[in-house]
Order: sequence, then C-alpha cells, then structure tokens
Amino acid sequence: MTAPARNGNGYRPAEGPASQQGMRRANLALVLGAVARLGATSRAQLAEATGLTRAAAGSLVSELIDAGLVQEHGVTLEGRVGRPSTVVSLNNRGPAGLGLEIGVEHLGACVIDLSAEVRTRIRVPAANRERDPRAVIEQLARVANSALAQAHELGLDPVGAVVAVPGLVGAASDTVLHAPNLGWHDVDLTGQLSSLLPGLPVEVENEANLGALAELRRGEVGRDFVHVSAEAGIGAALVVDGLLLRGRRGFAGELGHMPVYPDGLPCPCGSHGCLEQYAGEEAVLRNCGFQDAAGDRVAVLVDQAHAAHPAVRRALEQAGRALGIALAGVVNLVDPETVVLGGAYADLAGWLTPGMQTELGARVRIRPWEPAGLVVSGLRREGPVIGAATSVVQRVITDPAYLQERRERREQRV
Amino acid sequence: MTAPARNGNGYRPAEGPASQQGMRRANLALVLGAVARLGATSRAQLAEATGLTRAAAGSLVSELIDAGLVQEHGVTLEGRVGRPSTVVSLNNRGPAGLGLEIGVEHLGACVIDLSAEVRTRIRVPAANRERDPRAVIEQLARVANSALAQAHELGLDPVGAVVAVPGLVGAASDTVLHAPNLGWHDVDLTGQLSSLLPGLPVEVENEANLGALAELRRGEVGRDFVHVSAEAGIGAALVVDGLLLRGRRGFAGELGHMPVYPDGLPCPCGSHGCLEQYAGEEAVLRNCGFQDAAGDRVAVLVDQAHAAHPAVRRALEQAGRALGIALAGVVNLVDPETVVLGGAYADLAGWLTPGMQTELGARVRIRPWEPAGLVVSGLRREGPVIGAATSVVQRVITDPAYLQERRERREQRV
Repeated sequence: MTAPARNGNGYRPAEGPASQQGMRRANLALVLGAVARLGATSRAQLAEATGLTRAAAGSLVSELIDAGLVQEHGVTLEGRVGRPSTVVSLNNRGPAGLGLEIGVEHLGACVIDLSAEVRTRIRVPAANRERDPRAVIEQLARVANSALAQAHELGLDPVGAVVAVPGLVGAASDTVLHAPNLGWHDVDLTGQLSSLLPGLPVEVENEANLGALAELRRGEVGRDFVHVSAEAGIGAALVVDGLLLRGRRGFAGELGHMPVYPDGLPCPCGSHGCLEQYAGEEAVLRNCGFQDAAGDRVAVLVDQAHAAHPAVRRALEQAGRALGIALAGVVNLVDPETVVLGGAYADLAGWLTPGMQTELGARVRIRPWEPAGLVVSGLRREGPVIGAATSVVQRVITDPAYLQERRERREQRV
Repeated sequence: MTAPARNGNGYRPAEGPASQQGMRRANLALVLGAVARLGATSRAQLAEATGLTRAAAGSLVSELIDAGLVQEHGVTLEGRVGRPSTVVSLNNRGPAGLGLEIGVEHLGACVIDLSAEVRTRIRVPAANRERDPRAVIEQLARVANSALAQAHELGLDPVGAVVAVPGLVGAASDTVLHAPNLGWHDVDLTGQLSSLLPGLPVEVENEANLGALAELRRGEVGRDFVHVSAEAGIGAALVVDGLLLRGRRGFAGELGHMPVYPDGLPCPCGSHGCLEQYAGEEAVLRNCGFQDAAGDRVAVLVDQAHAAHPAVRRALEQAGRALGIALAGVVNLVDPETVVLGGAYADLAGWLTPGMQTELGARVRIRPWEPAGLVVSGLRREGPVIGAATSVVQRVITDPAYLQERRERREQRV
C-alpha cells in the first residue's frame, strides 16, 4: 500500500504556508526520529543521517536534551581519530507512555519508555461483561495509579494514557460508541477516566487498531499489513505505508461482519454468514460444545486443541477456513505485504493457519499468494495494551514540540 | 478514511530536512492550489486564503504567471474601494494533460486544461482482444497525435500523457503486467508508446484507479470512497483522504476476485465464487444468453433491460446482489463515505442498485448503511480517460515546480 511518487496518486491540497517555526518543529522531529532509529549516535552521525548541517543538528540535539527526550553519554567512539566525542540516545528515564486496557475478562496496564521498552505491566482478571461502566472505569483508574506509581519509582514520567477497548470509537470523539461484548453504548470513557487521573491526558482507541500499531512499532511485519485479532469479537486494522486507516467515521476494520457464507448462519447484527459466526470466540466455543467454559476460554481451546479434541480441532479448522476466505477478499482488495494474526488468534495459530493458507492460496490467484505473507504476532494478547502505551510515546517521537507545548500550557495554568 | 490528528495514527518518519527551497516549492503549490480552488481571485484574496503575506503571495503569483500556469485579467473587483486591482485564474491556454485509453473494444483520447475542462475528445472502435500489442500501441499513437494536434490548435500545451489500461500495472514499473481481457502479459507499454510520441512523458495506470481519480477531481463524492467499475473485468479503487490506495505492489482493488459465494461457480483464476462470475460483463451476458452479442455489449444489455427482457433483468438483479455482498465487506472493512458505481456499471445502475441496496442494507449493520452512500458516477464510461488526463494536470497543480524542472532539463538537452 505504498504510494509511490508518480503521477496520479490523487489530490491532497496543502493546508497552510510553510514557515520557519514549522521547519524547526519538523527538523526537531527529524533528529529525534533518527536517534530513535539509530540508537546511540554522535551529533556528526545525526547530521549525516538527517542531511542537516552539524551546527543545526547540534542545536536541535541540545534542545532535545533540555526537553528530557535525549540523554548524553560520555562515550568515546572507538576507531576514530581526533578528540573524543559523546553519543546521545533516547532518555530511558524520561517521558513515557501509559497503556491501559479494558478486556471482557480482564483489565491491564503497561508503561513503556521512549525506546518502546516495556518497563512495567499489570493484568488483573475482571468480569466486565455487562458490568456498570462506572465500576469498570473506577477499577481501571486504580490499576492505572498502580502502574503510574511503579513508573515514577523507575524515574519515568508518563505523559499520557491511551485506553484499548473492544469496541467502536468515534473518529471525532473519545467516546466508546458501541462495545457489544461489554454491553456498552455511548460511554464517555475519556471524560470519566480523566477526572480520576488528573493531569494525565487520556485517549481511547479500538484494541485492534492498537494491536496493529504495536506490530508496526516492532517493525517485523513491514509497513503495509492487515492485522487480524480476536478478543471477544473479531477486529482488523489496515496499516498503509505506516499509517492506520481509520475510515471516514473511524469504523474501519469491521472484518467480523464481512459476509463469508452469504446464506449462512444468522448473526446478532441482523445479517447472515458473517465471519464472526465461524471464527469468533463465541462461535468456535459453541461449535465444539465449550460455550459454557469459564475463565480464560482461549486457554481452554488451546489446551483441548493440544489434546487433539476432535470437535475443537474441527471448529478451529472451520474458523481458519472462514478467516482465509474473508482475508482473501481483503488481500485482493488492498494488496498488503503481510497478514498478521494477533491477539487470541496468535495463541490458536497452529490450528487456524492450515485452513487459512488453503483458502488464501486458492483465492488469491492473480499475484499469487505467498504463504510467508501470513505472520503470527509475537505480541499475542499483549498487543493492544502495548500498542496503547506505544502510541503515547510515538506521538512524542514524531512531534517532540507537542510535549513542550503541553508543558508550557500546564505551567501557565499553575 | 480521514486520519484525524490524534494519538496513535502510526509512524511515518520524516525523510529529509525542511529547507528554504522546499518551503518555496510548497508555497508555490499552495498558491496554485488556491487559484484552482477559488477560481478568479485577487492577490490579496490569495494571501488571505493561504496565510501568506501579501508580498510573498504576489511574488509567487508572478512566478506562476511566468510559468504559464496562471493568467492575469485586467478586471476591477466591484464593490471595493481603493484603486482597481486585477484577478488571476488558471491559464486555459497553457499546460494541459493528454489522457489515453486502451479498451477491449475501443481506443480513446482526451485533452483537459488546467481547470480540468475537457477540451477535445476522441473515441474509435477497435477490436483489441487478443490483438498484437504492437499494433494496438501504434494505433493508439495515431489517436494521440490527432488529439495533440487538436490541442495545439486550441493553444494548449500537453505536458504529459497517461494511458488507462484494463489490467494490472506494477507499482515500481510502467509495464502492463497482466491484462487478461486484452490477452497481454508483461507489455512495456510506456517504452513502446514513448518512442512513438517523442518529447512527451508517458505513464500507464489501471483504468479503475483513473476512473476514481476523475471522480475525486470532480468533487461530488467526497475524498473517501470506493469506486467500482466494469469495462471487461471488474475494477475497484479505494480513495482514502484524497489519496489512491495502490497496494504494496500496486495491485490493490482486485474486487473481481473477492469470494462472494465461496462454494459457487468456478472462475478462470482457479478459485470459486469470485464476484466476477456473477457481476462481470461476460458473466452477466452468459447468464442471460447474450454471450455472443457483438459490438457495444453494454449497450445491448441496457436496451434489453429497458425492454424488460426477463433473463436480462434477472441476470442484472443477481449481479447487483453479488456486488452488494462484496461491497458490504468492503464497507465494513474500510468505512468509506460513499460507494461510487462507475464505468459500464453506471449505464446499468438502474437495474443493479436495487439488489445492491438490499444486500448493503442487510449486511452493513453496525453503522448502519445509508442508501445515499451509493452514488452513480456521472462520468460513466468516460471516467478512465478523463482521469488519465486529469492526473497529468493534477501533478502540475500539486507541484508546479516539477514542470519547470522538466522544462529546464529539456532545454539543457537541446
């Protein structure tokens, strides 16, 4: 999904004049991005990597050090002549990101530093299905405060929080519009949680999108991929040239309701033959008679599949085929580099991928399909909460001036 | 598919330092874009619209006039006090775009000026199925030369050509990799045509993509849409926030091979139940017994459908339902603002849309589907060739400095 620089890509008008201030802001991001990409680096190397003059690169590095984003090491570069120089790297005791997660059966939190290292992680079981949103949000705030306390002990300063939710989030708002597996409609999650976490900007995002962002940041699946995950529902996220495709209203990625067998099983959504009726967690459990399993139901499926339970194996095979049919359509439509299987699907990949490969191989003919294009996420069910924390940090890396503006606004208020 | 400026959209690193030269280039495009958007405009209005100072806007306008992109009118603005001022607008006797088209049963050409007005148009019948590519390309060059001669008579200067083809075009090359309805494989269209049209840069692009770009430029369907068209095959193009999604290898939009009825009819691609077997031109003709119709076969279908031929009506109803099922998946996946029915489908829309609306309404449940989201293209089968010419002009509008660079290179060579 790269957009090569050729004629006819479309028409996106510029929105304002280029300015000196905009240039400095862009170059600050350029240098911080290079530090993030290259690791420990000298100022001279940064100048070379960015195309900036040494003087400009040096001045921008100083600004980044003052902002606490970059730290300086008194290290001599070996194998070089001339006077010893120092290197800089991302500050691992500086700004950090707090990721939060509301699952159907758990709450989670993690803090990552600027290098995207996970520094602390909390996961507590919680029966959130049909639970009062207020109670869920209050418990989440307590989990968040524990994670924040741990982060402060490590010398980290979380500058924002993002909450992963299994539901639709409006593009223009931070309201959870619809989370069927929680039983939520129009819950002002951001507002309620913000009031419990004063001073910390809070945003909310669909868990499938965040799982995809976590994969993107890891860098093992390319910058053009489809990420398919299951928690209670089925979520998909399209990443195009390193950017998440959100959809006009922020509702992109509803793969669970792609018609797979148009005259097939009825779906609670009102349609027939939706993918979720064959490959959703509920459907798989129902199809093999484990619909009443309690606790970690994915673990139940994994255990039974390992034990070669025939109905479980059959249900997972059917789920894999349905996923393969749906994804064949997606691959034909958007031509990604990889299809990434994440979340609970990653735990079940051993039993899902054979059927998926069969269908993808049979139905993606023109290019044709290469089996290596199907990749299992190494983040598994941790993807969304890590992605949530990552997205906070990523915003700082891509626009360090934003952090400074926020600080200045806060100081003015005090 | 807007990407709102919020946390977590992804990670696209800057690629080089911002510079004075880059600033001027961006601002030149900013001003020209404003002229294109606003029509006849004074320098003061352009300064206001772009956020530039009056001096900067004036200097950039002078540069655009010198480049022949903008023309000045000695018009006094009414209802204003002070000395009379002049307005500028896009030059309609300046640089222009040549669009070319290779259809299965015709060749086409058109020239549009900077305002995207079609100034001349040629369409000749040509039986191109399984015809020697060399002969097709030589005839296309003759058509192109006729169009160029007409353009020069109108005082226009075509600065490039784009060829619309019913096939896959590689993202990195200008080779037609696979055009099944022409019987083409790996045809170096750009190279061969360039040698017949010396001095004119030639590019090649999939016709469905160009149909979508033409719609985008018209501005009636928004900036986030799925464009579905049929000539001989079925093509789709995704436009996301005003940019065409091309896919990793440039193969995005293969909607014709989306599985609609997974256990359905065999497809020459090797799969079963592909959309093309229900909604492709061949399939529809076969399903109503008109597979041997000669000449303009879409016109045959339109005539018979108007005459209420029961098998034709039934075949179109089935095609509409299949299109609706496939597009329900697309809408759930990418959340576009509109679905645009273009090319031959636009001519058949009256008989296709009822079935499409039924399936979309039944299968897009979560948002839910609004019937007004399905739009019929006013460009109909002219979309691709107009889009081809548009894309040449659009490149000039979005980066006027590119044109100047090209001229300078050409003068150096002379």
